[in-house]
Amino acid sequence: MKRYEALAQDLADSIASGTFRPGDRLPSVRETSESRRVSPSTVFQAYYLLEARGLVEARARSGYFVRHAGSRQPEPGTSEPQPREHEVAISELVFQVLSHARDPSLVPLESAFPSPSLFPLPKLGLALGKAARHLAPWKSVEDLSPGSAGLRRQIGLRYLAMGCSVDVQELVVTNGAMEALNLCLEAVTRPGDLVAVESPTFYAALQALERLNLRAVEVATHPRLGVDVHALAAVLEQHPVKACWLMPNFQNPLGSLMSDESKRELVDLLQRHEIPLIEDDVYAELYFGAHKPRPAKFWDRKGLVMHCSSFSKSLAPGYRVGWTAAGRFAPVIAKRKLMTSLATSVPVQEGLADYLGRSGYDRHLRQLRHTLVTQRGNVARSIARHFPTGTRVTHPEGGYFVWVELPELADALELHRLALSQDISVAPGHLFSADRRFSHHLRINYGHPDNERVEGAIQTLGKIARALISR
Amino acid sequence: MKRYEALAQDLADSIASGTFRPGDRLPSVRETSESRRVSPSTVFQAYYLLEARGLVEARARSGYFVRHAGSRQPEPGTSEPQPREHEVAISELVFQVLSHARDPSLVPLESAFPSPSLFPLPKLGLALGKAARHLAPWKSVEDLSPGSAGLRRQIGLRYLAMGCSVDVQELVVTNGAMEALNLCLEAVTRPGDLVAVESPTFYAALQALERLNLRAVEVATHPRLGVDVHALAAVLEQHPVKACWLMPNFQNPLGSLMSDESKRELVDLLQRHEIPLIEDDVYAELYFGAHKPRPAKFWDRKGLVMHCSSFSKSLAPGYRVGWTAAGRFAPVIAKRKLMTSLATSVPVQEGLADYLGRSGYDRHLRQLRHTLVTQRGNVARSIARHFPTGTRVTHPEGGYFVWVELPELADALELHRLALSQDISVAPGHLFSADRRFSHHLRINYGHPDNERVEGAIQTLGKIARALISR
Repeated sequence: MKRYEALAQDLADSIASGTFRPGDRLPSVRETSESRRVSPSTVFQAYYLLEARGLVEARARSGYFVRHAGSRQPEPGTSEPQPREHEVAISELVFQVLSHARDPSLVPLESAFPSPSLFPLPKLGLALGKAARHLAPWKSVEDLSPGSAGLRRQIGLRYLAMGCSVDVQELVVTNGAMEALNLCLEAVTRPGDLVAVESPTFYAALQALERLNLRAVEVATHPRLGVDVHALAAVLEQHPVKACWLMPNFQNPLGSLMSDESKRELVDLLQRHEIPLIEDDVYAELYFGAHKPRPAKFWDRKGLVMHCSSFSKSLAPGYRVGWTAAGRFAPVIAKRKLMTSLATSVPVQEGLADYLGRSGYDRHLRQLRHTLVTQRGNVARSIARHFPTGTRVTHPEGGYFVWVELPELADALELHRLALSQDISVAPGHLFSADRRFSHHLRINYGHPDNERVEGAIQTLGKIARALISR
Repeated sequence: MKRYEALAQDLADSIASGTFRPGDRLPSVRETSESRRVSPSTVFQAYYLLEARGLVEARARSGYFVRHAGSRQPEPGTSEPQPREHEVAISELVFQVLSHARDPSLVPLESAFPSPSLFPLPKLGLALGKAARHLAPWKSVEDLSPGSAGLRRQIGLRYLAMGCSVDVQELVVTNGAMEALNLCLEAVTRPGDLVAVESPTFYAALQALERLNLRAVEVATHPRLGVDVHALAAVLEQHPVKACWLMPNFQNPLGSLMSDESKRELVDLLQRHEIPLIEDDVYAELYFGAHKPRPAKFWDRKGLVMHCSSFSKSLAPGYRVGWTAAGRFAPVIAKRKLMTSLATSVPVQEGLADYLGRSGYDRHLRQLRHTLVTQRGNVARSIARHFPTGTRVTHPEGGYFVWVELPELADALELHRLALSQDISVAPGHLFSADRRFSHHLRINYGHPDNERVEGAIQTLGKIARALISR
């Protein structure tokens, strides 16, 4: 046990024994640092861990407070999708609903990104500029798909640091995770094939299925524990599933996190059926717990897991650099990348490799995670305060989305439209399944630390929801 | 008529009348500038035009010389493809043959790019670095597909300068022309559809057809004048063609250039049949004549032409920025781009917009064109000197490829393999049609101004070809 973990355990014991009671303020970081003779950063990490475990909460400029037992709203239940094969026709609705997403005058609760202000853009710009000015001309040919050797090495080192052995040879650099996921899906399916996804699932996965004329089967998913592996096993027995597209870590929109044990079971199950897994893992760096969660890829022994991630949500929004560690499919995917977009921007690959080769990324990540966990608390409190009785909400251990289940009468598409008229964007649950079953659900982005504006917007959403219910 | 055109006409008359005879050296730029009382740059432009017309040739450090009539080798005839619908299965061969293309120890006659040393990479790097350091965070959301407003404006201005009215609204920025072309093809076809292409055609077009399970019908193409519009008309009468993928300007691999009249006829024909045209126009800036050739898009009145281009061959290799002006298909293509790669790197888009907003691009292009036209002459002379009797070769008015037709006994794939063993890469004709009919043809890249090495490589190729023939 590390020092901060021991300290956190001590404090958790004090809370359990009643030494600290709900509502109490914890001693300041400096006080605890002095009294326990540990460094302030150890105290900070311990408080942070307690917060991630839901025992304390940070309040802006006031410190850490012991949470009231039961102050957390109930979470939604496990989803119960229909066990049938769907044609997918959701894309038009997605584009229609998201057409306003780029309007900076709206409160961006619908956004798919955290606030771009949370990223070290000037520092990245320096690295990019330097790499571009000194770009060896031949690089523009060398760094075609599968990508820059330097960047792939840096990515490989990050896998290694997690204890995950990924061969640099199986890494293909892509234009963001979006391209990686689409290339992986194209590589292992043919038109008409059936793909298993979570319920609810990220709308871009449904759009990819629709674009490729694939069909979807949705699998029961727990809002905290992720996809139900037993339910998936039953689906695989009854349906000719050709691939799975899943998010074991901080699923979009639920924020659910599968345990290591479940991930291992998942990979074992798919290996028995020889079914490839497209693992969308773009939020892994945004964990609130003590450790970065492992990808399902960690348990892959047969090269069937295509692990996809990017720097778009953790470091460099807009740079459009992602990758896949694609196991046995890597050569096929590298070729498809060559055929469809040839390469990812070479100076950008070199610039990121340069940035990652210095220290700074992990420090930035710690700060980003701290901002996000604080925002999670703020938004959860706002929802508890303003949303109608009977609202259920997730309490994710990472990422920047909460999934809100409203009482049934509150139609989320109508709520979305009414919210737009008040300059608030929010993602209605309809977008997150092929049969639009999440009709009274919302995905709310808490990655925009503009508290007054966000609190006001949530208050307005709550009012609209109440009005919809009481009609 | 501009001053340099008048001067060029005068000089052409003097050559025609015998005042200047084959082999004569033209007066130096300074001499002519003084004697004719025009600026050196006018003389330079006039000589350049004469060179493009094939009347004179530049010799390194010696000046301009009147060409020997008949010193030019004969050009290949119009292709005569079989009038049938092909399944396409060429991709594996393409990858196999091109697998060595990135090895810098080879003489890169096979390369698809001009030498990266011909581009202003440090200046571009400055622009990119500046744009990235000062990137407004919100840009990373705003510049998603269809792309940066600033860059699209700059691209629009370049169309305008050609007299081509392209609405900024129909511009979609992409990861190079490759992505643009693939998105366009996906937007207007379904698996099994038939697409008309030139004969020979760029292998990446065939690969795109193969990836999407499309079939190809190949159309007779003249090595200097481009696709035969009458032959295309006959194909359209007999086959259910759903789209055309053509290169009216400096076709790859032929280097052919359609006349304005042919382009107009082409567009009229396709409009009558309501068939979309995917126009691959990546070499337009590399013209050797007096004016940049117009795209077929210029004559489009029904929004059926998807004009695709990029900066990869003219300014910024490796940056991976291209676009399509996609007419009526632009909204569909912007959405497909959102679904498959979301956006093109935002700092790169902003950096290019910044570079294009200053002067410098046109100066760079003049220099690049001059280098290429000189190289064309050098390589043509080398081929004339070293290749076997009966060789035919194109004399392109732009771009950086010559297409060489060897005597029939010289199998190009075998030649390619033997050349590799001598550290020379060269693209065999087999890659450029669905039925691999161009079996004794080569595409040779003359965009690498490393004259001794290139001359030596061409000499070696000639020896290998002779050996193959005389077996």
